[in-house]
Amino acid sequence: MKKKLQVGIIGAGRIGTVRAKTLAFCLPETVPLMIADVDQKAAQELAARCGIAQVAERSEDILTDPRIDAVLICSSTHTHAGLIVEAAQAGKHIFCEKPIGHSLAKIDQALAAVEKAGVKLQIGFNRRFDANFARVRQAVASGEIGTPHLLHIISRDPVPPPLSYVKTSGGLFLDMCIHDFDMASFLIGDEVQEIYTAAGVMVDPAIGKAGDLDTALMVLRFRKGTIGTIDNSRKAVYGYDQRVEILGSEGAIATGNCYPNQAVISTATSIRRDLPLHFFMDRYTESFTNELRAFFETVIEDKPTPVTGRDGRVPVVMALAARKSYDEHRPVRLEEVGAGVAAG
Amino acid sequence: MKKKLQVGIIGAGRIGTVRAKTLAFCLPETVPLMIADVDQKAAQELAARCGIAQVAERSEDILTDPRIDAVLICSSTHTHAGLIVEAAQAGKHIFCEKPIGHSLAKIDQALAAVEKAGVKLQIGFNRRFDANFARVRQAVASGEIGTPHLLHIISRDPVPPPLSYVKTSGGLFLDMCIHDFDMASFLIGDEVQEIYTAAGVMVDPAIGKAGDLDTALMVLRFRKGTIGTIDNSRKAVYGYDQRVEILGSEGAIATGNCYPNQAVISTATSIRRDLPLHFFMDRYTESFTNELRAFFETVIEDKPTPVTGRDGRVPVVMALAARKSYDEHRPVRLEEVGAGVAAG
Amino acid sequence: MKKKLQVGIIGAGRIGTVRAKTLAFCLPETVPLMIADVDQKAAQELAARCGIAQVAERSEDILTDPRIDAVLICSSTHTHAGLIVEAAQAGKHIFCEKPIGHSLAKIDQALAAVEKAGVKLQIGFNRRFDANFARVRQAVASGEIGTPHLLHIISRDPVPPPLSYVKTSGGLFLDMCIHDFDMASFLIGDEVQEIYTAAGVMVDPAIGKAGDLDTALMVLRFRKGTIGTIDNSRKAVYGYDQRVEILGSEGAIATGNCYPNQAVISTATSIRRDLPLHFFMDRYTESFTNELRAFFETVIEDKPTPVTGRDGRVPVVMALAARKSYDEHRPVRLEEVGAGVAAG
Amino acid sequence: MKKKLQVGIIGAGRIGTVRAKTLAFCLPETVPLMIADVDQKAAQELAARCGIAQVAERSEDILTDPRIDAVLICSSTHTHAGLIVEAAQAGKHIFCEKPIGHSLAKIDQALAAVEKAGVKLQIGFNRRFDANFARVRQAVASGEIGTPHLLHIISRDPVPPPLSYVKTSGGLFLDMCIHDFDMASFLIGDEVQEIYTAAGVMVDPAIGKAGDLDTALMVLRFRKGTIGTIDNSRKAVYGYDQRVEILGSEGAIATGNCYPNQAVISTATSIRRDLPLHFFMDRYTESFTNELRAFFETVIEDKPTPVTGRDGRVPVVMALAARKSYDEHRPVRLEEVGAGVAAG
Repeated sequence: MKKKLQVGIIGAGRIGTVRAKTLAFCLPETVPLMIADVDQKAAQELAARCGIAQVAERSEDILTDPRIDAVLICSSTHTHAGLIVEAAQAGKHIFCEKPIGHSLAKIDQALAAVEKAGVKLQIGFNRRFDANFARVRQAVASGEIGTPHLLHIISRDPVPPPLSYVKTSGGLFLDMCIHDFDMASFLIGDEVQEIYTAAGVMVDPAIGKAGDLDTALMVLRFRKGTIGTIDNSRKAVYGYDQRVEILGSEGAIATGNCYPNQAVISTATSIRRDLPLHFFMDRYTESFTNELRAFFETVIEDKPTPVTGRDGRVPVVMALAARKSYDEHRPVRLEEVGAGVAAG
Repeated sequence: MKKKLQVGIIGAGRIGTVRAKTLAFCLPETVPLMIADVDQKAAQELAARCGIAQVAERSEDILTDPRIDAVLICSSTHTHAGLIVEAAQAGKHIFCEKPIGHSLAKIDQALAAVEKAGVKLQIGFNRRFDANFARVRQAVASGEIGTPHLLHIISRDPVPPPLSYVKTSGGLFLDMCIHDFDMASFLIGDEVQEIYTAAGVMVDPAIGKAGDLDTALMVLRFRKGTIGTIDNSRKAVYGYDQRVEILGSEGAIATGNCYPNQAVISTATSIRRDLPLHFFMDRYTESFTNELRAFFETVIEDKPTPVTGRDGRVPVVMALAARKSYDEHRPVRLEEVGAGVAAG
Repeated sequence: MKKKLQVGIIGAGRIGTVRAKTLAFCLPETVPLMIADVDQKAAQELAARCGIAQVAERSEDILTDPRIDAVLICSSTHTHAGLIVEAAQAGKHIFCEKPIGHSLAKIDQALAAVEKAGVKLQIGFNRRFDANFARVRQAVASGEIGTPHLLHIISRDPVPPPLSYVKTSGGLFLDMCIHDFDMASFLIGDEVQEIYTAAGVMVDPAIGKAGDLDTALMVLRFRKGTIGTIDNSRKAVYGYDQRVEILGSEGAIATGNCYPNQAVISTATSIRRDLPLHFFMDRYTESFTNELRAFFETVIEDKPTPVTGRDGRVPVVMALAARKSYDEHRPVRLEEVGAGVAAG
Repeated sequence: MKKKLQVGIIGAGRIGTVRAKTLAFCLPETVPLMIADVDQKAAQELAARCGIAQVAERSEDILTDPRIDAVLICSSTHTHAGLIVEAAQAGKHIFCEKPIGHSLAKIDQALAAVEKAGVKLQIGFNRRFDANFARVRQAVASGEIGTPHLLHIISRDPVPPPLSYVKTSGGLFLDMCIHDFDMASFLIGDEVQEIYTAAGVMVDPAIGKAGDLDTALMVLRFRKGTIGTIDNSRKAVYGYDQRVEILGSEGAIATGNCYPNQAVISTATSIRRDLPLHFFMDRYTESFTNELRAFFETVIEDKPTPVTGRDGRVPVVMALAARKSYDEHRPVRLEEVGAGVAAG
């Protein structure tokens, strides 16, 4: 039996919990060895639940522990870039939740540190590991639908997050659309060059008062000509709506939502089914496991990670361009906001 | 038994044929009495097939015949506005295929003539009479899905028209998108104020050489805030693709395509169904009948037509704005191209 | 222009009305010349609506009129066999609604008269001309799904007929299942040899008191081995349910119901669509037209009818066997009830 | 942290492997402590993979180990009843794969031993814990669809098992249909009283030569009147087909198959999706975990198991009746084959 990878987890919040459970119960090739959180109690409870031997007082304790092979950065977004730098300098392989940060300067510092240290870095764009989106990517990559002409991404939340969260989230584009920006590049396999945004406050005026938007439609122009749209809403009353479709020269592919069951009920008033899986935890369960498995494989087999630091930088540039387009009411080229592109 | 409405048909081409058959075989309350076409042979053949008593040498013969209650203008687009003026002056009720014309000045002359004569005018936006789109309109109008936030219209042809047609069609926006512009206003029940266009030549370079586009994505901003998109392509290899979906504050509605049968075939390689109804003649058969029935009802019962002259003018303004947006690479307000709005 | 077929209609009830309208408005190659009904007023009204020149006092007047090429027998079931004999003796081609009758002896007399006279006879099993069932038949006939192993037919009415109708209908097997018996033979392209029936009164006790059943499940054994089921209910609260599926050695085919629109509505409680087309008039509209068109084509082109007298006899035998199986609580071979098979 | 349940596993074959992995990676409240298999090498490999501390030489070693709280019997069917007796006498709680056995006498001995010992016994009818079937059960139990009138179960394998397996499997009814017999009772919540079987050899003549059948259609009569069918085939070329539908007095519910993704691909020849999940391991993954979780909960909370010994006996009686019906070509009442019913 091979030695298991020893892993430290920084952050015991919602996503840190998902990661800890995945390590403990689904990925036998790893051991969750240490965990840290500013909320020590949360870290202790999670450690107990998942059989994690040690609760560190500070993230530094994890980053400097010689037993640790890799760290999962699951803390608040504003800490990501700094922790990446520290972890890289400590020679740890790094899995970091999205986004790397809100500032391109800090992101570039983090990516430079990773490159210098020669460690692995994977960004947590879990949707790439979802069976639906992977199937769409395959259809494009294999030529099954020919050259992509038109792309549509629909990504709607069932309910807006709490207003307190909205205020510190970085705004709709950096917080919510970021996943869809990554999907767009990933699915088409091409770079976006220009973005036009139409957006508004339709769901809750309080979101508008907090300086954010709750509904957005973005038009993407790709380098090779594909035109795409992203449709984002903070509220679809029927639940989590996650679909894409692509028209290509030889065909089209479209994905539907995922449901808790395949039952159709027919009554005197309608033919109906239950609501789709309600939130990202249920909808993307398997993708969270798949992405971590892929990360540890790249560590074990010493190969490039499937979602690189550069992949993590691009959607941030897109978010900045999308916001600028909204502010200036015109299409904005990505090079206007983030011309220099960091190394992979 | 009431006296039947006596109808003249101008134009014996593709759409004139549909109209003649509908009158002859589906609308017992009407009699197709006369038909005219520059191609006399076509007119004679159609008259024979549909039991039309008289083939007129010129459209004027129809317009001046005292027996005629109403005329159907099914000739080339560039003749529409002029024929509307003549028919109105002759006191005939008018059903005219879309679009009224490519020039707002001529359209406004035609609408003025209709208003002055006090005759009925209905424009042939048949899709309003399609069961799917009517159901979507009902969902919005009844409040079933609340306030509309986001609209998506997908409208793709199975194959591009012949290049000769492309050259005289008025271009993608006036020829093809025109239906979708009307749908957008109709479904949401609100006016579009601004359009942004992203478009290209992806299907056939020859279309580009002819000065036209074959793929377009338009973003619409409605007066009350709804954001919409129209996705148009001259070629979807799987056939005629006609779908809409709307996200509202209380729910969403989405329509699928129509199929020749409801059979699903499962084999060792896939779970599949036959291609959707292939072209507009098959897909919209019933709507062609429904719109004529509605027109004759308005004549018989002396009530306003469901698709007015003003309704026919709006999509032309939208087409001009969409083209201008493409040319100038910026969002364009409708008032920039067609500020004055004709009477209903 | 060819001479039109001159047609007489016997019966101006529900189905006679469908036939008259179809002749008048959808089949330009025919003229509905005469109509008769014991209810003279009904015949007169229908004649006026459909432009039928003459209302005959008695069906004999139609059958003996030398102008008449073909007759449509749309009267009560108990009159069918006798009218077929008279019409055949008068040399008229015959389209007769299903079933030919409830007595095999009378049916055989009718078929013998037709054979002797050399006229065309088509029985009104309209479902054979429905796009869904035709597609299933094509899948079997073409080998698309290989050798058929298992067949399932589901055929449920939205509401039971009035009790007065139930009492004279001949019972569930002869009245309702008869269509499905025909479908079974048609779809598989083989003869049923044995039937086992499980049935009961589940919908309305009054139906049971009238000596009939309202819910039935029949197992069919075909000559070449295929096993089939028919599921009949007088009441499916969600509407008219008409589906079939076949498992073959190389694949399967299954049909869904038909809907008034393709819209899906998503709300906070469900993902739903409107109820399917509610009754046979809406669901099978096109098949009624298609079967008459096919009949007149066989007359005009002098070829065999697609649904022969023998095809009309088989389901009656099956109905008798199904009832006998229910009564005796055992599988019953068709040869036990109707061994001799009439000529085609 | 509570003490974990210490579990022994008897059998390291296909299903034993599923169980061991589930204990090791998905059910943190349990510890797989010991495993035994006649194939010692298989047991050792599985132990290594799942961190099972000890490989027992004989099942007795597990059954007599005082540390063991519960045993999972995952060995060949013919050993089930005997092992249940031994485990019960040793005071262990028991989870046993289906079926308990092929002989009612042995089953009744086993159930008597369990009753005497007062231990928990749960039979491995995993489908009850599948989201689709659980939803159907809920629809019936809650009255959502009213009183059930008609039930259809379709259960088809993608390929027949190896002939060697067929020969020792107990035959189609005891091996394959057994799951569907359990489903029928479970979904309707009522007892089946009579079964009629139509069956044949359609897939592979070699199966017939081995004395078995490969295609079967069974009609079930429930005590309260519901009529049901079970459609079983050893081969559906498109994959694992697992559906049910129920018509009730107030509505209907129907489940579809489960797919690896929700993508629909449209090409010039068809609208298609990928094949459904191919075999029971993929299709019922979650149900295997759910049923074990439920078992351990009943042990921990000392409550009745959700699938009792009696629930395990009933489908065996149904299988015997189904075979007898086939052999004697008549409907067979369950009391003819297994009148006495064991205690719960």
